[in-house]
Amino acid sequence: MTSTIEAAIGAAIAAIEARGKPANVYFVALGGSFSQMNAAKYAMEREAKTIAADAYSSAEFIARNSPRLGSSSVVVLCSKSGDTPETVAAARHAKEKGAYTIGLTIKGDSPLAQAVDTRVDYDATPDAGSADIPSAIVLRIAFGILAAFEANPKLSALNEGLAKLPGVVAAEHAKHRQATLDWAQQRKREPVMYTMASGSNYGVAYLWACCILQEMQWIHSQAIHSGEYFHGPFEITDSDIPFVVLKGLGNCRQMDQRAVNFAGKFSEKVLELDAQDFDFEGIDEGVREYLTPFVFLPLLRTYAVALSEARGHPLTVRRYMWKMDY
Amino acid sequence: MTSTIEAAIGAAIAAIEARGKPANVYFVALGGSFSQMNAAKYAMEREAKTIAADAYSSAEFIARNSPRLGSSSVVVLCSKSGDTPETVAAARHAKEKGAYTIGLTIKGDSPLAQAVDTRVDYDATPDAGSADIPSAIVLRIAFGILAAFEANPKLSALNEGLAKLPGVVAAEHAKHRQATLDWAQQRKREPVMYTMASGSNYGVAYLWACCILQEMQWIHSQAIHSGEYFHGPFEITDSDIPFVVLKGLGNCRQMDQRAVNFAGKFSEKVLELDAQDFDFEGIDEGVREYLTPFVFLPLLRTYAVALSEARGHPLTVRRYMWKMDY
Repeated sequence: MTSTIEAAIGAAIAAIEARGKPANVYFVALGGSFSQMNAAKYAMEREAKTIAADAYSSAEFIARNSPRLGSSSVVVLCSKSGDTPETVAAARHAKEKGAYTIGLTIKGDSPLAQAVDTRVDYDATPDAGSADIPSAIVLRIAFGILAAFEANPKLSALNEGLAKLPGVVAAEHAKHRQATLDWAQQRKREPVMYTMASGSNYGVAYLWACCILQEMQWIHSQAIHSGEYFHGPFEITDSDIPFVVLKGLGNCRQMDQRAVNFAGKFSEKVLELDAQDFDFEGIDEGVREYLTPFVFLPLLRTYAVALSEARGHPLTVRRYMWKMDY
Repeated sequence: MTSTIEAAIGAAIAAIEARGKPANVYFVALGGSFSQMNAAKYAMEREAKTIAADAYSSAEFIARNSPRLGSSSVVVLCSKSGDTPETVAAARHAKEKGAYTIGLTIKGDSPLAQAVDTRVDYDATPDAGSADIPSAIVLRIAFGILAAFEANPKLSALNEGLAKLPGVVAAEHAKHRQATLDWAQQRKREPVMYTMASGSNYGVAYLWACCILQEMQWIHSQAIHSGEYFHGPFEITDSDIPFVVLKGLGNCRQMDQRAVNFAGKFSEKVLELDAQDFDFEGIDEGVREYLTPFVFLPLLRTYAVALSEARGHPLTVRRYMWKMDY
């Protein structure tokens, strides 16, 4: 955890404390950044006694224009470039309604950074178990709010857990090195690939489906919620339909387990990634389920890299994004 | 509107009034029933000044086990058969936590009906613009709560609008009769088909993707949020990729318009269904956006029937659902 990020989070929490207990916290972003808001909404709902939480895609947040958004709201926004028009507009909308706004971006002089009350500059360096990726920063803000107003005791355990992530992620990378290459060879000609998860990991599945497979690989996909799978989507399961299933920890685990059991019975192409295998030794049981997305995210990144190399389709290729007005 | 449903809704609202203003309302169901909860969550967020609202897939609702669920909560559940295990368990969980529970089902003697405080028996007769389908009943409950506790003035306009739906839907069916058949012939060999919507109509898109295309037709799909489309999913757009886009009314319309503009530029297979074409003459402007899903739902049903006939794959066929334990 870099000290500037820690200081920015601390300043934001202090400012929110000075305003008094918020009635609600909104997490607002788009695409990959939106997917990283899921874990914080999940944790708030698991932990908060009175503070409501919700996550929205930026333009939908503005369109809903909720009467509940106001001076007792906190709005946390994220845009890597800091100039995504819908997210900048969402920040301005929230400010106009009197909310306290926090913006995560890698550019301290960007429109988002300038529109919000507190900016948190993060570094886009990837995925080695850092506690400074957007989803982890947003979770730290959520637990900071819970500590300040509801005496939630988990913030220090969360921070201790986050500090151990680099080791956990390095161990997972080592364990999966050969598996990523084998899987990529087996899956390189698939036209469609589904992902399943629930709870704290649903956002990771969403990112994998929408931003890795659809955006970066032009492979058809959907992030199926593990519990919803049995109420519609499971009918597309067949021997040749690939799934990537994330098995989490905590109460949601049984949903993921049930989904992987069924998918594995009828499809020959199920990749199961299990958070129970992560080396969470020494990390408080009460925060483990919240930390799993920060391991799944870099782990899946290595699967994405291997897939892109096997397909000769770099993750940087786009046909529309950043290439035209839309 | 049948009088027994109206009476059940009235009884539920009276009981909630006697308990005092709820802090939050949860909409809980699975699959097709879950998709029908979206419009009520949306309307609550557009209208409610203090009451929070959220929608969950049943098992996720139990797993989250929110400390905010309690005696100042209302939980609205739906299971057509009334015996979906996760939804029955969710009702019992909510009751145990002290919430007031309302259950929609077609079977008055089912486990769900017996588990809840107030049951609303609905009829499964389809889709001619009825105000007695689950999504409309749930919306009526939402506006009943808003009228009781926040003096929201829209309930009578909503009911007047709902009363006009059969005429609106009949007109849409007539307008689209030939178009459904033509579209079904053109799309009958598609292996994948995307849907897009936002706001009050996102649930309809979700139902179409998960319960019609995946479940009943074994066609790969995803309900893409119109605003999220540009932040990942739009990269799979190509000349031969089919989309069905629902263009709503109100603040969300511009998101849908932007999505259809882009999809239509690069795909030759975009079906646009526009709520602006619905004959909403005489219906209050303030409730129109909430009524659009009840027209899109039966309209898309006719597209589904035409598609299933062109493909020789009846909508009743399943390979797993109801055929085995899962």
